[in-house]
Amino acid sequence: MARGPPAAAAAAHGPRLAGVGRALLLLAATATFLPAAESYCPRDNSLVRDISRMHQSNYGREGFSHITVAGALAHGMKEVEVWLQTFGPGKRTPIHRHSCEEVFVVLKGKGTLLLGSSSLKHPGEPKEIPVFQNSTFSIPVNDPHQIWNSDEHEDLQVLVIISRPPIKIFIYDDWSVPHTAAKLKFPYYWDEDCLPAPKDEL
Amino acid sequence: MARGPPAAAAAAHGPRLAGVGRALLLLAATATFLPAAESYCPRDNSLVRDISRMHQSNYGREGFSHITVAGALAHGMKEVEVWLQTFGPGKRTPIHRHSCEEVFVVLKGKGTLLLGSSSLKHPGEPKEIPVFQNSTFSIPVNDPHQIWNSDEHEDLQVLVIISRPPIKIFIYDDWSVPHTAAKLKFPYYWDEDCLPAPKDEL
Repeated sequence: MARGPPAAAAAAHGPRLAGVGRALLLLAATATFLPAAESYCPRDNSLVRDISRMHQSNYGREGFSHITVAGALAHGMKEVEVWLQTFGPGKRTPIHRHSCEEVFVVLKGKGTLLLGSSSLKHPGEPKEIPVFQNSTFSIPVNDPHQIWNSDEHEDLQVLVIISRPPIKIFIYDDWSVPHTAAKLKFPYYWDEDCLPAPKDEL
Repeated sequence: MARGPPAAAAAAHGPRLAGVGRALLLLAATATFLPAAESYCPRDNSLVRDISRMHQSNYGREGFSHITVAGALAHGMKEVEVWLQTFGPGKRTPIHRHSCEEVFVVLKGKGTLLLGSSSLKHPGEPKEIPVFQNSTFSIPVNDPHQIWNSDEHEDLQVLVIISRPPIKIFIYDDWSVPHTAAKLKFPYYWDEDCLPAPKDEL
């Protein structure tokens, strides 16, 4: 199957923006217009990689862009993984949990962290916590959560750091689903093309 | 001994920059005006932290600024740690190695990664590898290395991710020092105020 051009992104770079993350910004700005994801594992053993030329995809989610900046399957990381993600206005992650650590650094925009509980039988009514450009937050291990670009106009762009890659994610259809009924999605969408799917999900 | 003012770096930033990392940049710009570092462990259990209000210091290195964005000792991380570091023109890290993973994301500026070998008895003549804004690179585990802002004018600003915190660093006086003679510095400077120093360094 033919591969799309890697990160058609960064096509229309004007010379106006300068400074931190210029390429990241333009990358995000053009994300919506990219063709749909195709099967592709962006393996790359280069020591230094230009993030604006790295493979990005929406992995089937409109208004979303993900780049594995440093990954277990694509780049041989064993203990940490780094992602660059952009959410268009109103877009959100699924409600999900994982047992690894996760740190966010908000590079651009603002949004809401919805955070449920791991101590009840189900996530319960989530706390709504504002996040903003140049803020950082960590997700307590195993707490169900959702990142939501609650802004109506601006993209939300985050750098995400996880431990113990590749990530194993349990997804909840809503906040009332019992923890035991959350569905394991592994390998996760951006790892699917790099790792053969397991025979069952147990 | 009195420490110098934190990060003389980043003095002359005008207000033109906008977008990603603006606050980070302004942070760097105002660093010069902060009081000198004092013994202080910035413990903070807030879920969301404003990076521009977080504790920064040069830890005794002129033209340098370090912020522990998410740390083991300050914020309870167990598996990953995230730093924001700024190097003024010409400034560099010590030559050092560590057995944890380390990923850099260059937010601003450009510089040189000097990378020695862990397979000889000493680091040897290092490779000189250019790094640039919006690039990413990982340090091979245990390879001696040095980050150098080789630019004469602009600050180099990086987000650094390490595994297995707090970091244990072995420092080399130069590239000909045998690996076995590199000196362990633990706790490292930004962890010193959070962790009691061990009784000896063996």
